[in-house]
Parts: sequence; C-alpha cells; structure tokens
Amino acid sequence: MEQAKIRLYVDQPVAAGQPVAVGEGQANYLFNVMRLAPGAPVALFNGHDGEWLARVEQAGKRAGILRAEAQVAPLRPPPDLWLLFAPIKKARTDFVVEKAVELGVARILPVLTRRTQGDRIRQDKMRAHAIEAAEQCGATVVPEVAEAQPLDRLLASWPTGRRILWADEGLAGTAATFAGLPPGPWAILIGPEGGFTPEERASLQALPQIVAASLGPRILRAETAAVAAITLWQAHLGDWK
Amino acid sequence: MEQAKIRLYVDQPVAAGQPVAVGEGQANYLFNVMRLAPGAPVALFNGHDGEWLARVEQAGKRAGILRAEAQVAPLRPPPDLWLLFAPIKKARTDFVVEKAVELGVARILPVLTRRTQGDRIRQDKMRAHAIEAAEQCGATVVPEVAEAQPLDRLLASWPTGRRILWADEGLAGTAATFAGLPPGPWAILIGPEGGFTPEERASLQALPQIVAASLGPRILRAETAAVAAITLWQAHLGDWK
Repeated sequence: MEQAKIRLYVDQPVAAGQPVAVGEGQANYLFNVMRLAPGAPVALFNGHDGEWLARVEQAGKRAGILRAEAQVAPLRPPPDLWLLFAPIKKARTDFVVEKAVELGVARILPVLTRRTQGDRIRQDKMRAHAIEAAEQCGATVVPEVAEAQPLDRLLASWPTGRRILWADEGLAGTAATFAGLPPGPWAILIGPEGGFTPEERASLQALPQIVAASLGPRILRAETAAVAAITLWQAHLGDWK
Repeated sequence: MEQAKIRLYVDQPVAAGQPVAVGEGQANYLFNVMRLAPGAPVALFNGHDGEWLARVEQAGKRAGILRAEAQVAPLRPPPDLWLLFAPIKKARTDFVVEKAVELGVARILPVLTRRTQGDRIRQDKMRAHAIEAAEQCGATVVPEVAEAQPLDRLLASWPTGRRILWADEGLAGTAATFAGLPPGPWAILIGPEGGFTPEERASLQALPQIVAASLGPRILRAETAAVAAITLWQAHLGDWK
C-alpha cells in the first residue's frame, strides 16, 4: 500500500469514505508548505480510530478536504502512565512534552509547586506541541495535556489505586527499584528546578502511593529526569518489553 | 564545611594550597556575572583530583587567582561507556552532549555517516558544552569529546573487546535486552535522522561486537534514543545500580 509521508492528527471521526475537513493551519501546512495536490496520500489519526490512509480531495489556501480510504494501523494507546511535572523554562518544557509523547505516556499534568513560575504555563501551546510530537513519532493517540494545577490540590484528591514514582535524590531508592515495581496505574513525578520545599516533601512522603527511586549519582536536570524515569518505567512495566 | 555554590572545571593540577589561575572567560563569569569577592568559596574539579574547595584570592576583570584548600569529594569517574552519535541540528546536538554528561558517559564520539551533515560539527563547542554540563551536574570528570570521524573508519579499527549497543528499530531486540547485557566496555550507537544507508546497516550488522536492542514501538528522535539508551545501560550495567 502507498505510504503517506505526512501524518496528521484530526479532531474528527475517521471512517472509510469519510470526508475530513482541514482548517487554516493544517491547510497551509499541507497545501502551501508541503505542496500536496489532490490525490496525494496523508495518514490520519484522531486518537480513537487507529491510523488511516486518506487522500487530498480539495486543496484550498485556507481549507481543504481529505477523504479517508482505509485503516492502515490499529489504535495503539500508550500505557496507563501519567507524567506530573513542574513546568520549567519554555524550551525545556516543550522538550518534556515532546519526549513524554515519544516515550509514551497517557496524560501530561503540569503541576504548580512553591518554586514553579506558573505565569508562563500555556496549556494550548503544550497541547499543540503534544500533537506535533504524536504526528512525528507514529503515535495514534495524543496524550491529554491537563490544565496546570497546584500540586497540593492534585494530591488531595489523588486516586487511591495510582502509585506515584518519585525520582528524588533526597529519598532512598536505586534505579533497581524500577525492576520491582508492581503493574497497574502509575504516575511519574518530577520536581521543579530548585526542588520541592520541606513542606511539600513532607506531604509527598506522607502519601501512601509514593514510591521512591534514584536516577544515579549525578544531578539530573528536571527534563533529563523525566526522560530517564519514563524510559525505565516503560522498559519494566510499559510497552517496551 | 562551607558549601560552594559555583562549580568550576579547571585544566590544571589542584592540590592543597595550590594557586589556580583563571583566565578571561572564567574571571568574567566569577567576578563580573556572579560577583564573587576575595574569600568566596568555589568548588573546583579537573577530572583527576576529585572535587576541591577553593577560595578567591585575587579577583580581576580579566583574570584572577583561586587557592585550593581541601578535597571535598573523591574522583567519581563515569562508567566505561562511549556514546557514538551522528550530530543533528545544533540545539539537539547540544542537548545530546549535555544529557550524555549528566547521565554519565566516559567518551562522546561524533560520527559522520552518509546522511550526516558534517560541516557544522564544532568539536570546541561540544567540548565547552560538556564542561558546562559537568559543572552543573556535579560530575568530577568531563567526558572526552573526540574529533568527528567517519563511522566506517571508526569501525575499521574498533576495539575487539568493546561491544556496541545499537538501538535500531529495524533490528530484532527488545528493551529487555538491556537486562541481559554482559558487563565490560560498551558503546552506544545512535544513528542519524533519516537513518543509516543499507550499506552502512550491512557493515554494522557484520560487526561481531554489535548487540541490537529496541526502545519501544514509537519512533524516537535521535536525541531521545540517546538519553533512553544511556539510561537503560546505566540502570543495568552502570553506576545507577
């Protein structure tokens, strides 16, 4: 079967013969930047229906229509892993979102801590970044990007059955901890640059769902810790096995 | 003991009572940017003598002198792991170097492949980036950054006893492969964006030192693959255990 070079996330149902409208941003990308003409193949996914081969039917400057032909890959949802992280500088936050999507998480939850500068958190940008990463890495689902919320409020209503892996150099635990983690719903918690305050640490340690693990003897930046922790979780409990 | 907030790499011997001269770049950083005055503590490391507490003795605009007082941490060399990677876009190359230092490798070897744009490879910049990362992550050794060389030439004289872990989606292998790797000298090989050519793949596969592993079902960018592969190696064979 013909291989589409472009993968596109659409927020619409996709089924055989279904026309799929694309708006200004995607039309510009497909028809102006990539110069796709009618008949050109495009791969579509919407997070529910797997991956589809579609073709350009109408190519306009500001809008267009694609028509879905056939499903070419099933839905492959990421494992039930959440990433909680305190947004950092812009470029590094983009990076965390991109890498979380590539490595495979189900939800991305920006959290506000005492030492987080929350005024620059833009959920819409993070969401756009997650979509772009999913398009590039072959994912058929875009992880949900939640609205930023204070960590203490999030923890106050934390689901009983979801464990939290906290990679914190101040806690006991080694990377070997990952090998012994029980399956089930998990979240990975990455602290802010500058760390949690003593009060935040105390309330985290008091949570029964917390499991501590170490990521080695050197000091990892927040975004490195996120990638390393997701990697080890994926290799032991996720879909990398 | 007083804790220095600034860690500085110096390319000079360090011993108790030893004066250590700093040149223009470091003097500017220490005395203009950070405004350190005589008597202020600085942590020094040179890759050989561990970490030392030193104090500012002379603070000039273009040069200065620090005096080493006492060793505060032993030398902690990274494990014997090399990273071979084909340099990519500038920001992402910087990122690979930074992350390799944080995660802990002994040598970084930029390699030229058929699909590598080698004209933008700047060993001096990569080296400066490695030093900066080591200063920030608490490393006492700066990984060596080798001069870029063609992959085929590098492989032609490859050390017999050093295995190469190749995270390649085209090869069999799973992330579980990492758990079974034998100890000893290793290198991790990350291909260029766009992948290796069929000829390059054939010569890699013919190498007896090659071990294939997978990094999951999604397509990882080169820099993500580098971080994920070093992480898994460190957790199984390195100093994260």
